[in-house]
Amino acid sequence: MADLKSTFMKVYSTLKSELLDDPAFEWTPDSRQWVEQMLDYNVPKGKLNRGLSVLDSYKLLKEGEELTEEEMFLASSLGWCIEWLQAYFLVLDDIMDGSHTRRGQPCWFRLPKIGMIAINDGVVLRNHIPRVLRKHFRDKPYYVDLLDLFNEVEFQTASGQMIDLITTLEGEKDLSKYTLSLHRRIVQYKTAYYSFYLSVACALLMSGEKLENHIDVKNTLVDMGIYFQVQDDYLDCFGDPETIGKIGTDIEDFKCSWLVVKAVELCNEEQKKVLYENYGKPDPANVAKVKALYNKLNLEGVFAEYESQSYEKLITSIEAHPSKAVEAVLKSFLAKIYKRQK
Amino acid sequence: MADLKSTFMKVYSTLKSELLDDPAFEWTPDSRQWVEQMLDYNVPKGKLNRGLSVLDSYKLLKEGEELTEEEMFLASSLGWCIEWLQAYFLVLDDIMDGSHTRRGQPCWFRLPKIGMIAINDGVVLRNHIPRVLRKHFRDKPYYVDLLDLFNEVEFQTASGQMIDLITTLEGEKDLSKYTLSLHRRIVQYKTAYYSFYLSVACALLMSGEKLENHIDVKNTLVDMGIYFQVQDDYLDCFGDPETIGKIGTDIEDFKCSWLVVKAVELCNEEQKKVLYENYGKPDPANVAKVKALYNKLNLEGVFAEYESQSYEKLITSIEAHPSKAVEAVLKSFLAKIYKRQK
Repeated sequence: MADLKSTFMKVYSTLKSELLDDPAFEWTPDSRQWVEQMLDYNVPKGKLNRGLSVLDSYKLLKEGEELTEEEMFLASSLGWCIEWLQAYFLVLDDIMDGSHTRRGQPCWFRLPKIGMIAINDGVVLRNHIPRVLRKHFRDKPYYVDLLDLFNEVEFQTASGQMIDLITTLEGEKDLSKYTLSLHRRIVQYKTAYYSFYLSVACALLMSGEKLENHIDVKNTLVDMGIYFQVQDDYLDCFGDPETIGKIGTDIEDFKCSWLVVKAVELCNEEQKKVLYENYGKPDPANVAKVKALYNKLNLEGVFAEYESQSYEKLITSIEAHPSKAVEAVLKSFLAKIYKRQK
Repeated sequence: MADLKSTFMKVYSTLKSELLDDPAFEWTPDSRQWVEQMLDYNVPKGKLNRGLSVLDSYKLLKEGEELTEEEMFLASSLGWCIEWLQAYFLVLDDIMDGSHTRRGQPCWFRLPKIGMIAINDGVVLRNHIPRVLRKHFRDKPYYVDLLDLFNEVEFQTASGQMIDLITTLEGEKDLSKYTLSLHRRIVQYKTAYYSFYLSVACALLMSGEKLENHIDVKNTLVDMGIYFQVQDDYLDCFGDPETIGKIGTDIEDFKCSWLVVKAVELCNEEQKKVLYENYGKPDPANVAKVKALYNKLNLEGVFAEYESQSYEKLITSIEAHPSKAVEAVLKSFLAKIYKRQK
């Protein structure tokens, strides 16, 4: 595993060097240095789960066959394209949300010399993806499918981000809009496609598969992505801050969290009043009242029930799959997230 | 001409409807309304020169042959993709520059309900391009070339924007960096590829041409784009504000304008001091001193000389082209901009 990660990091260095010498642009020393710092600050700083998943999945699809060096490089490159995509989203999201820190360091746009230039840096990050794809995959029979895939997933993510931004528009705080259907929609589009489906889809394309023959794989991974985000919402309130590495603020931030959606669904008229009066306010007293209500409604139990039901459903749909290799890929994903505490 | 524009506008309505029903996303009434308003506000409000050029160029390449309805629709769609690309750049540029108005109306992000959501709207605009291409061009033999073209041009534009942003970084005002080579680089990458080359490249692809066989066309159009931007820089200071529709502020804004580059090149030590002390300051007294220096250096005459030399060079390179149809396309572009006053 440590070995896999160090191979993966070597590919990052190669891709970065290639991008900093891209002949489609006449580089100046200043611009080259800028892009290098921007990449190092924003791209390889996360857990790299999404990127490493392409490698994992591709290996499982090859059913134990040793990967060639070229295959390792190509699968890693696709993994890095996903990490680049993620960096692009995060750089822009942090500006839109007015965030302060990300991955344990100040957000890129908070650095003194950066500011709003970060918007263009986000655009540059995004534009690196087709550069990598063109350099390394242009001659592959699945090149056009890769371009279509990244385009479609980016479109879905931006669309999910849009409904999230519209529903939490300042001045329009209205809990009655927060339904399970809205929650599912935001999560599915904003997170599930790019965080769960994309890496497996990349691995499938590399294996010579056509994505239209794997709609069931897509659906299962999207369901897994939704389950993952529900866990996230749960841990934001009930997780151990030491373990998850941050103090949740979904209640203060009026987030369309799975917990508040469930609370609205389960509460009586009197409890609803408490929720409406206290949700989305920064004062700890308000937050405490919301948490007390969550406890009264036994949301921990409701979540435990949701978790085991989701698991059952996911296992059933995974085991209905005709290919053992694909089954292995999906089960490996599920094993990584089932009952996670962080 | 009025007829051409009305055909073009009809295609806009069609593309918009298709995007608002895109099955890759589950629309809510709110999000559909949001995107519709965002498109109408930002996409069809300019002069549409870039978009209409695809139609013009394609017609010339067909040498008088009547276009079918399908050809009209496809060429217009590619034209609209360029307008969408332009809208995406402008929405984001206005945020980065802190601009107030654009095309005679407040910048999109200045509208009360919009703010930083405009960043995601820019991303959505950008994502519409591959949606249009996929819907209407997926089965064309040149589909993958279209995707590559739009990706490459966007990369070049973002890279040009980057050097522009870096060189005009607040707190690093340094006129000695403003050379003709830097000016050319910024203009070539930030403007010329998407404003001049892209529309002709789209028309060439639709005509069944391979772009690697038309490097000379690209070079000529890039040169024309540079010439166009030099005119822009000239008109910002010497044009009639009534005619160009705005009051230039390049001097106040410390812009890397062709005029200041020429001034730095031509002035003696004493004049250089005047320039360094007065360029990039908002006070009209400082601006007046810079303008007086421009007059002393006879920059109007220097520009007139540049203009006629550029024209000669462009005509020579255009007439060296083997294809009469391509020659006609390039001459039509040049005729539209030569000695323009606005």
